Amino acid sequence: MKVAFQGEAGAYSEQAVFDYFGNVETVPCESFDAVFDSVISEKSESALIPIENSLAGSIHQNYDLLLRHDLHIVGEYLLRVRHCLIGLPGAKKENIQRVISHPQALGQCASYLRALGVKVEPVYDTAGSVKMLKSSGETTTAAIASHRAAEIYQMQILQEGIEDNPENYTRFLAIQHEPIVPDANAKTSIVFTLKNQSGALFKALSVFALRDIDLTKIESRPLQGKPWEYLFYIDFLGSLKEPHVNKALDHLAEYALMLRVLGSYPRFNES
Amino acid sequence: MKVAFQGEAGAYSEQAVFDYFGNVETVPCESFDAVFDSVISEKSESALIPIENSLAGSIHQNYDLLLRHDLHIVGEYLLRVRHCLIGLPGAKKENIQRVISHPQALGQCASYLRALGVKVEPVYDTAGSVKMLKSSGETTTAAIASHRAAEIYQMQILQEGIEDNPENYTRFLAIQHEPIVPDANAKTSIVFTLKNQSGALFKALSVFALRDIDLTKIESRPLQGKPWEYLFYIDFLGSLKEPHVNKALDHLAEYALMLRVLGSYPRFNES
Repeated sequence: MKVAFQGEAGAYSEQAVFDYFGNVETVPCESFDAVFDSVISEKSESALIPIENSLAGSIHQNYDLLLRHDLHIVGEYLLRVRHCLIGLPGAKKENIQRVISHPQALGQCASYLRALGVKVEPVYDTAGSVKMLKSSGETTTAAIASHRAAEIYQMQILQEGIEDNPENYTRFLAIQHEPIVPDANAKTSIVFTLKNQSGALFKALSVFALRDIDLTKIESRPLQGKPWEYLFYIDFLGSLKEPHVNKALDHLAEYALMLRVLGSYPRFNES
Repeated sequence: MKVAFQGEAGAYSEQAVFDYFGNVETVPCESFDAVFDSVISEKSESALIPIENSLAGSIHQNYDLLLRHDLHIVGEYLLRVRHCLIGLPGAKKENIQRVISHPQALGQCASYLRALGVKVEPVYDTAGSVKMLKSSGETTTAAIASHRAAEIYQMQILQEGIEDNPENYTRFLAIQHEPIVPDANAKTSIVFTLKNQSGALFKALSVFALRDIDLTKIESRPLQGKPWEYLFYIDFLGSLKEPHVNKALDHLAEYALMLRVLGSYPRFNES
């Protein structure tokens, strides 16, 4: 089985692919667009895309791509992001003067790096920073990336878990051509548009509230070509198999201008 | 009067400052953080920050900064973003082979640039691309930026309004130390958090729906340190001067874990 992800070998997304799918063949892609294209063109059977980080928020581009393409969400996975300070074999932490990584990883380790008293330099990718470090051969430079990136490039982990905030999780969605219909303990993701009138969102949310359906996420995105009108993306607990979920969506379809189910899938079990 | 904005002289944000404030002294800042700091430290009396683009969506960093700092929103402005293809004096459109600008501007002119058959190259800033072009002296390269950027650097506009989608607006917020309380035709921006329980957002929105208060925007952002809990930012029509607005906020405060008014300000008149 081939699974597409965005980034280079050793990226956090690739780690998530192995955790979620097990021993599959990974297909690295340059951009999120390329990840979707890989599944659409059947070069990959599936893909795993990051949709939200607990510190940085939603990855809005992937919301837009879910709308644009006719793929289905079939699963979710939560990855605990644990950054490692990585040096060349034989490098010593106390000699490090410069640290390179993706700007978001540098930002998530800002206090640690200030205490270390090093110069920081943003580069395009976390795993890519390890690759760059390896080819530079500089023993006073370190990279920040995943444990796996250090292994792949046969580099040395100088310190693990250097992120300032341990509550650093990324939520991934598994997507493929064919939808599934899960049993109990499921989540469903939908997108809809509403008439631009007073109380519209309140009425839309009533279809869930009246049936005690628990929303886990709401996200709004601009509707292209209609300034200050929005698409709403909602995740809620429940499967399309359950009658009260179907009733809620029937009721919403009556009221929404557009409604699409992006997928119904087993909820990730955090324990 | 001094007004801070993010970017270089000639940036779209600077154009918005002149449109909104009239003839003031502008203070260019490298980052949005620096814009807020400029007002906090009283180097500037006010600032104008972009909060939302009709094509690209919200500028989430500015939502986070509004929460972190104790400044008040006192006005809003809508700028129609009109991109210009800019060359050196004497350059000809048919000779252009390469176009440089901020990735977002390049993206918003993608169809136009494809038809022109040129190579595109991303740089850090729109106005900055004009400055770079000027110092390079290359007559076969063009930049994409505002009309004003072309004037400032005494360059030539090869074509105006080259954006693929004319519905390209950026909404700006004016911020300062002291709040104002506007009369009729106002907007109010708030931020709040809720208990993580079924129906929570529905109940929160009921305080507006029951009083026919029109929401114009809802945005969610991650609550730091509490994965999968959210801050909600809402804009609605009405002034703090109006009794039904005060009742709605009283009612919401009863129910919300945290509630803060970011500002009540005159609504921008689009006509």
